[in-house]
Amino acid sequence: MNLGFIGIGLMGRPMTLRLLAAGHRVTVWNRSREKLAAVVEKGASSGGSPAEVARESEIVMMCVTDQRAAEEVLFGADGVTAGAKPGSIVVDFSSIAPASAREFATRLEAMGIGLVDAPVSGGVAGAENGSLAIMAGGREEHVERVRSVVMHLAQRFTRMGDSGAGQATKLANQVIVGSLIAVIAEAVRLAEASGVDATRLPEALKGGFADSLPLQIFGARMAARRFEPSLGAAAIMLKDLENAATVAKEKGVPLPMSSTAVQLYRMLAAHGKAEQEISTIIELLAGGRK
Amino acid sequence: MNLGFIGIGLMGRPMTLRLLAAGHRVTVWNRSREKLAAVVEKGASSGGSPAEVARESEIVMMCVTDQRAAEEVLFGADGVTAGAKPGSIVVDFSSIAPASAREFATRLEAMGIGLVDAPVSGGVAGAENGSLAIMAGGREEHVERVRSVVMHLAQRFTRMGDSGAGQATKLANQVIVGSLIAVIAEAVRLAEASGVDATRLPEALKGGFADSLPLQIFGARMAARRFEPSLGAAAIMLKDLENAATVAKEKGVPLPMSSTAVQLYRMLAAHGKAEQEISTIIELLAGGRK
Repeated sequence: MNLGFIGIGLMGRPMTLRLLAAGHRVTVWNRSREKLAAVVEKGASSGGSPAEVARESEIVMMCVTDQRAAEEVLFGADGVTAGAKPGSIVVDFSSIAPASAREFATRLEAMGIGLVDAPVSGGVAGAENGSLAIMAGGREEHVERVRSVVMHLAQRFTRMGDSGAGQATKLANQVIVGSLIAVIAEAVRLAEASGVDATRLPEALKGGFADSLPLQIFGARMAARRFEPSLGAAAIMLKDLENAATVAKEKGVPLPMSSTAVQLYRMLAAHGKAEQEISTIIELLAGGRK
Repeated sequence: MNLGFIGIGLMGRPMTLRLLAAGHRVTVWNRSREKLAAVVEKGASSGGSPAEVARESEIVMMCVTDQRAAEEVLFGADGVTAGAKPGSIVVDFSSIAPASAREFATRLEAMGIGLVDAPVSGGVAGAENGSLAIMAGGREEHVERVRSVVMHLAQRFTRMGDSGAGQATKLANQVIVGSLIAVIAEAVRLAEASGVDATRLPEALKGGFADSLPLQIFGARMAARRFEPSLGAAAIMLKDLENAATVAKEKGVPLPMSSTAVQLYRMLAAHGKAEQEISTIIELLAGGRK
C-alpha cells in the first residue's frame, strides 16, 4: 500500500522501517531532514512537505512530539490537509490532549479526511519489535481500514471509543508509566541503601507483582546509572502527565500519586535535566551516590 | 522429604498443596485449627504445635502475617525452637522488617538452626501456579540446601545477600507493588471519567509499558468494582509500606511516591476498610461513582 510517515524520530524511525520491511511503499517527511537518511537508505521516498507525503499516500501516519507539532503538520502551510485526497485517513501516533484529538478530527472530517488517534505504548524496543500496545479513538470503519497496516507495528491495536478515546487511554497509560518509573527509582534507591545489589532487582522480581517492562528497562538503567543511549526524555513524560492533570482537573478526579510524579519530573526539569533520559530521576533521590 | 509448614492462610494453603502434590511429607500447623482441613484432606499431617512440626521436619517453612506472629511461632512456648533439631533449616516466607529477620537469624544460629528469609511476590495466583518470585537472604549453603524444595513454589528463588537481604528486597518490591496499585486506581478512574470503558484497559494496555500483574488482576477488579473473593487485605500492604518507610528513614532515602501511597492505605484504614481487598482503594478516588 502507499503509506506516508511524518516524524522520523526515536519512535517513527523503527516504525517506518517495519512498514518498509513488510513491503509497503512509504513516503516520509521530517522537520530536520538529516533524520530521513536512516529510512531513505532502506527504501523510503523522501517527500518535500507533509502535503507531498499526503498526496502520495492512502494512509498518512504521523508521530510527532506534541500537539503544536501535530497541528502544524496537519494544518500548516504545506501541511497534510494541503495534499490529502478526500477519503484518505490520517493515523496519529503522537500523544496529545484528548480535546485536541477531537478538535483535529472534526476539522479533518469537514475536509473528508478521517483521523484515528492512535497513541502508542512500549517505547523504542516495542517499536523495533512491532510489539507496541496502540490505543485507538475514531470511527470504527476508519480503525478497521488501517488495522492490517498498524498491526505491523503492534501486538495490540484496540479501539477504545470515538475520537479522543485513544488519547484518553494513553493518558491513563502514562499515569501508570510515569508514576511507575518514579516508584521504581525509589525501590532501586531503597535496595541500594539497604546494602542489596540493586542491579539484581529486575531479575529477582521478574514474573512477580512488581515486574513490568519499565522495571526491566529503566530499573536496570537506574541501578547501573547508565542513561545512554536515551530511550526518551523526561520532558515528554512531563508533558503527558501535565495533560493527564488537566483532564483530571476538568473531571474532578483526584490523582495523588501521579501529581507527586508531576512534581518529580518538574524538579528534573528545574535541574536542567528535562532533555535527559527519564531514568535520571534516580539522581533526584540519590544525588551523586550509588 | 519431611517438611513442615506453619501458617495455612491465603498463601500458605496453596503453597502446602503444591508441596504435597510434589510428593513431600508435610506436617502443618495453624493458629486457627479449622484452616488445616483443606490441606489435611490432601495428605498433610496435623502437628499439635510449631515445636511438633519442627520435630517432624528437616526443613520448616512458615508464612505468617507479621513479625509478632513470626516471633511467637519461632520462639514462643512450644515454638519451632522448642522442637527443631540442630542442623535443620527454617525458611520464613513471611514479610517482616529486615532488622527482625537479621535478629531472628542470629538467635536461631546460636541454637544451630539455619534461617533463610524468603519473602514472596506473586500473590495467591502465583502460589497456586508455583510462579512466585522469592527473594532470599541468608547463608549461601542454606539457600542452596532448600532450593529444590522452594522451586516447587517459585519460578525464581534469588539469593540477594545475607540475612535480611530477602526482606530488604521484598520492601523494594512492595514499594513498587503498593504504589503501583494506587497508581492503577488513578488510571482506571481517569479513564472512566473520560468516558472510556475502563474494564477494557487491562486488555488494551497488555504487553505495553503500563502492563503488570497488578494491572491485569487488581486493575480489572477496580474497573468492575468486584472485590470478592479477597486477594489480600489493604492492612498487609500498609504494614509493608510502613516497614519500607522505617528503613528509608534510617537510611535517609526520599520516598515521595510511596509515602503518598502510605497515606492512601492509611486513609483506607481510617475509613474502616483495612481488612478489605486492596482494590477497594479505587473507592477513595471515586466515592460511590463509577
